[in-house]
Amino acid sequence: MSENRVEQVELLRSDNDSYGGVVVKIEQPIDSKLFPSLLRASISQWRQQGKKGVWIKLPIEHANLVEATVREGFRYHHAEPDYLMLVCWLPETADTFPLNASHRVGVGSFVMNNKGEVLVVQEISGKFKGTGVWKFPTGVVNEGEDICTAAIREVKEETGIDTEFVEVLAFRQSHKSFFSKSDLLFICMLKPRNFDIEKQNLEIEAAQWMPIKDYAAQPFIQKQELFNYVAKICLTKSETNYTGFSPLATTTGSGKISYLYFNNQDAKHLVTSDNQP
Amino acid sequence: MSENRVEQVELLRSDNDSYGGVVVKIEQPIDSKLFPSLLRASISQWRQQGKKGVWIKLPIEHANLVEATVREGFRYHHAEPDYLMLVCWLPETADTFPLNASHRVGVGSFVMNNKGEVLVVQEISGKFKGTGVWKFPTGVVNEGEDICTAAIREVKEETGIDTEFVEVLAFRQSHKSFFSKSDLLFICMLKPRNFDIEKQNLEIEAAQWMPIKDYAAQPFIQKQELFNYVAKICLTKSETNYTGFSPLATTTGSGKISYLYFNNQDAKHLVTSDNQP
Repeated sequence: MSENRVEQVELLRSDNDSYGGVVVKIEQPIDSKLFPSLLRASISQWRQQGKKGVWIKLPIEHANLVEATVREGFRYHHAEPDYLMLVCWLPETADTFPLNASHRVGVGSFVMNNKGEVLVVQEISGKFKGTGVWKFPTGVVNEGEDICTAAIREVKEETGIDTEFVEVLAFRQSHKSFFSKSDLLFICMLKPRNFDIEKQNLEIEAAQWMPIKDYAAQPFIQKQELFNYVAKICLTKSETNYTGFSPLATTTGSGKISYLYFNNQDAKHLVTSDNQP
Repeated sequence: MSENRVEQVELLRSDNDSYGGVVVKIEQPIDSKLFPSLLRASISQWRQQGKKGVWIKLPIEHANLVEATVREGFRYHHAEPDYLMLVCWLPETADTFPLNASHRVGVGSFVMNNKGEVLVVQEISGKFKGTGVWKFPTGVVNEGEDICTAAIREVKEETGIDTEFVEVLAFRQSHKSFFSKSDLLFICMLKPRNFDIEKQNLEIEAAQWMPIKDYAAQPFIQKQELFNYVAKICLTKSETNYTGFSPLATTTGSGKISYLYFNNQDAKHLVTSDNQP
């Protein structure tokens, strides 16, 4: 501290980020009447320091500070159940804040036994409720979950069948599925390890092994273009050679594992026993 | 209105959703002192009506109501720059609110001319800044944008080269790339329609056509496992047969177009001249 600093102004605690900005995490309660002056003094210091983007992470228990933060020129960036992230770009230039997550990711699983029967379910709720349509087990990929793990988990949860991941046969991107968000649905092929179905009762009305031709012949599947194409891809896979994308484990610079999915029949030389899931 | 209803309680205007819940959109300013009683009376009515999930969409100009909404038991669901969505589940059961978007989606473009040269750039900022590494043009898929459109747009923006989409060669899923969110990166092959580079000056330091072997031989590309695999897949594609996933336009029940990406060499019979992008 400099000795000739006569006035000691209280400031918000912040950490520098790697993009010339600062991140503030509010962890202790602050009176919403005191907060505006604290925030204003901090902004003024960040401006003097030439900071660019300011991020304020407000846990939901500090919802009392949202209004004041917005009044000081912040906008929402994203929110999760337990916090709201607000941002403010200090320079005159256009902001370069990264975009919010834009897609939800789902999996649909094609599981066939060696009698040419496919594992199908009827759901208790949702848009297929009461239609009598038999469909592949499907589900949403959890936060931080790999596509190949999610497909196995959903099949197990809905039908009790253990499986091994084979490949992604196809994927579909659709828009405006949920507010302004988009959807990516990965159709995965899995190999069953057991055959006795133990259906889950909460979401699943019925589950069975069904001849793949009967599955594909259902009027609903015939009529809906996407379902029809997917059924034809699965039929092609079951009858002839069809190669999808298989996962290969790669390690990033920071030591994290991430899967690369590609046609490993056409690029066999890339695959070793070490990098299979 | 019943004649013997003596007290007229003011309530929030709400619309029913298709899942037994209600959606409230606050469009007019409301005094934050009056709002709690209005919200409480509304919740009480929704409970009587057996409603399940309540959604309150608060535009950012009504940030004065966030604190009161949280106090009445709501949590954050998601936020976009101009609004915050809060939710509250009225029954005693576990909530079935859909999950928030979990992934950001990016594209990396492999564009090769008929001299075996690949289109590469050096970026002005970001993690490759100043490293001298030549990389494929990459970018983030915009909200509501198709992967095949985004790849073409990014190449055009960064290098001025017009292209035609060929296929997705591979994709990678990684986690915790941005707060708790995951990332899906699609490596796309595009065919150039012109060859004279006009680089964009804001993000791109330099752009050139580079022999694909020189690209793959860069120490950084060799060292980073993911880049190395992707380079090898692109080399395989340039030298022999490698089939990725091509997009096929499908129409949903509600008339929206969405693309299904799959191996159309192995399932040629599905493709007609009508359903190509």
